Amino acid sequence: MTERIRILQYGLGPIGCALARLAAQRPGLEIVGAVDIAPGLQGKDLGEVLELGRGLGVRVVADAASTLRQARPDVVLHATGSHLPAVKDQLLGIVAAGAHVVSTCEELSYPVYRYPELSRELDRAAQEKGVALLGTGVNPGFVMDKLVATLLTACTKVGRVEVGRVVDAAGRRGPLQRKVGAGMSVAEFQALADANKIGHVGLPESAHMLADVLRLPADRKLVEELKPKVADKEIRTKFVHVLPGQVAGVDQMAAVLVDGKEIIHLHLEMYVGAPQPVDRVLIEGTPRLEMAITTGVHGDVATAAVSVNCVPLMSALKPGLRTMLDVPVRITP
Amino acid sequence: MTERIRILQYGLGPIGCALARLAAQRPGLEIVGAVDIAPGLQGKDLGEVLELGRGLGVRVVADAASTLRQARPDVVLHATGSHLPAVKDQLLGIVAAGAHVVSTCEELSYPVYRYPELSRELDRAAQEKGVALLGTGVNPGFVMDKLVATLLTACTKVGRVEVGRVVDAAGRRGPLQRKVGAGMSVAEFQALADANKIGHVGLPESAHMLADVLRLPADRKLVEELKPKVADKEIRTKFVHVLPGQVAGVDQMAAVLVDGKEIIHLHLEMYVGAPQPVDRVLIEGTPRLEMAITTGVHGDVATAAVSVNCVPLMSALKPGLRTMLDVPVRITP
Repeated sequence: MTERIRILQYGLGPIGCALARLAAQRPGLEIVGAVDIAPGLQGKDLGEVLELGRGLGVRVVADAASTLRQARPDVVLHATGSHLPAVKDQLLGIVAAGAHVVSTCEELSYPVYRYPELSRELDRAAQEKGVALLGTGVNPGFVMDKLVATLLTACTKVGRVEVGRVVDAAGRRGPLQRKVGAGMSVAEFQALADANKIGHVGLPESAHMLADVLRLPADRKLVEELKPKVADKEIRTKFVHVLPGQVAGVDQMAAVLVDGKEIIHLHLEMYVGAPQPVDRVLIEGTPRLEMAITTGVHGDVATAAVSVNCVPLMSALKPGLRTMLDVPVRITP
Repeated sequence: MTERIRILQYGLGPIGCALARLAAQRPGLEIVGAVDIAPGLQGKDLGEVLELGRGLGVRVVADAASTLRQARPDVVLHATGSHLPAVKDQLLGIVAAGAHVVSTCEELSYPVYRYPELSRELDRAAQEKGVALLGTGVNPGFVMDKLVATLLTACTKVGRVEVGRVVDAAGRRGPLQRKVGAGMSVAEFQALADANKIGHVGLPESAHMLADVLRLPADRKLVEELKPKVADKEIRTKFVHVLPGQVAGVDQMAAVLVDGKEIIHLHLEMYVGAPQPVDRVLIEGTPRLEMAITTGVHGDVATAAVSVNCVPLMSALKPGLRTMLDVPVRITP
C-alpha cells in the first residue's frame, strides 16, 4: 500500500484517545480529522489532546457532518458509546459520508439479535454506500468471542463452551471503574442493575456470535445474570476508593441454552483489586481444549490494538454490516 | 446455503481418511469423488474404505484427471504429501479442473519463501481459473501460526514471540510416528536428518507467516535445528517399539532473527511418550500475553477440523494462492 489510509477519530474519551494515539503511530495511517462534543476540546490540536508532544495539524471539532465532508476519511474510528440506538445516527452519518466504520460500540459487535431492524437499516445504508461497518474491541470483539470462535475451528464436534474472564478494573480507565460500580453500596448497585444502567455491555453479543458459529437453533434461549462483586478489603485506585462491604465491580454471566441444556457459558468478573487477571476457554468437544491466557488481556490496550489492526482490512471486506467473524488476520494483495 | 458443496477426496492415507470421514458427516457437504493410487483401494466404495458402515456411492479410482472431469467437485480435499514439488502437478490438475483446493501439504501452507517461482505459478493458475488454493491443517495452519497471528492482533507492539508445542506421537497415526523417527537408533536418525529426510515439515512456513504478520524486514534470517529426542524408558505403541537410548521422536526449532536478534522462536517436540502435550505462546509485547492450551491440540483430529471447516469459505476467498491469514471464521452472506 503506497497511499496512506485517511483516518477520522470520532470520540475522544479514554478509548477514543487510545485508538487515535495508536493510529498516529502507524506509518500506513494518516489522521485527517477529529470529532468530539466536549467544549474543552474544541479547536485544540489533536496531538495536544493525545499528549503526543507534537501537533498533528488536526483540530478537534464538534460538527461531525462538516468534518466528514471536508476531511474525506477512508475509515472512521468511532468510540462514543456502548449502546447502539444512542450512536445510530452518528454511524449513519459516517456511512452517508462514504467512510468505513470501525467502532468500539459494544452493541454493534453482533447487533442482529438485540436490534434486528436497526441492523438491517445499518446494513442497507452501508451496502448502498459500498462501505463496511464493524463493531469490535477486546470484549466484545476478541477474548470472549473471536478468539474462542477461532479455537472452535480446530474442533470437529463441540458439546459445550465455557469462557471466563477476570479483569482487574484498577488498572483501567476511570469511566470503566465507575461503569462496574466500584465504590457504590450494594443497594445503589442493585437499583442501577434493576434499571439496566450498570455493568459490562456485550456478553449477549459474544454469546450469540458463538451460538451462530456452533449453528445453534433459533429457538435457543439466552439467559443473563448480573451481581455485584463485594470488596472484602479497602481498595484505592486513581479514580475510586472502595471500602470493605462496598461494591468492587461486577460478576456477570450470559449463557445460551438449547432444550434446557447449557451449550455456551460466559462468565466475566471485572472489579478493582482482582488479584489474578486471566482469560480461560474450555471447549468440551473433539478434541477437548483447555486454554488460558494467564497474563489476562489488558482491555484498553487490546481494544486499541484490535480496532486499529482492523483498519487496513476494511476496504477488502464485503460492504455492509460486518462482524469480527468476517475479518481475517490480513488480506493478501 | 441450499445446494450442498461437492467434495472430492484426493488421497486416502490416515489424514485423507480423517478429512473424508468428517466431510461425510457434514450436512452441507456431499462427497462426489475419491482418488488414491493404492492398488488395494481401487473400485472400493469410499464408505467401506472409511469404515463408515454404509456406502457412499463413490468408488475410489486412481485416475485423478478423469474423476475430476466427471465428478465436477467444487472443492478438493487434498492430502497426499508434505512436499510441494512432489504434489505440484496434482494441485495444478485440480486447479485446471476448476475446483478450489484445501490441502494438508505442509509446504503449501506458506510457500512463497521456500518456493517463490512455484508459488507464482500456482497463484497464476488459480487466478486464471477463478479458484482459491489453500494449504492448512493443525501445524502448519493453526496452532503455531494462525492462532498465534490471531493473538498478535490484540497487541499494539510486539518485541518477540515464542511458541512451543509438545505432542505425544503415541496417540497419532503410524506414518507420523515413523516420520519423527520413533524406534530408530540415534545414528540412523542423524543420517536421515543430514539428508533432510526426517522430521516435521512446516516450521519455516509458520515462522515466515508470523514474520510477515509482524512485518519483519526482508533481510531477516531464518535458522532451523533438528535433534532426536532420545527415549529414557521403553515405549510401545500400536505402531512402534522404542527401547531406552533409541529415538522417541523429534526436537525441532525454527527462529527468525533480525539484525542478530531473535524475534520469533518456534519449538516443537513430537515424540512417543511425551507426558504432557501442551501448546504455549508467549508474546513479549504490549500487552504481554502468555497463553497455554494445557490439553494440547490433537493433531490428526484438529487437522481434519481446520481443513474441513475451511471448505465453506473457499468460494468467498479471492482467487489465487491464499494462506490461513486470509481465512476468516466465517463469511456473512
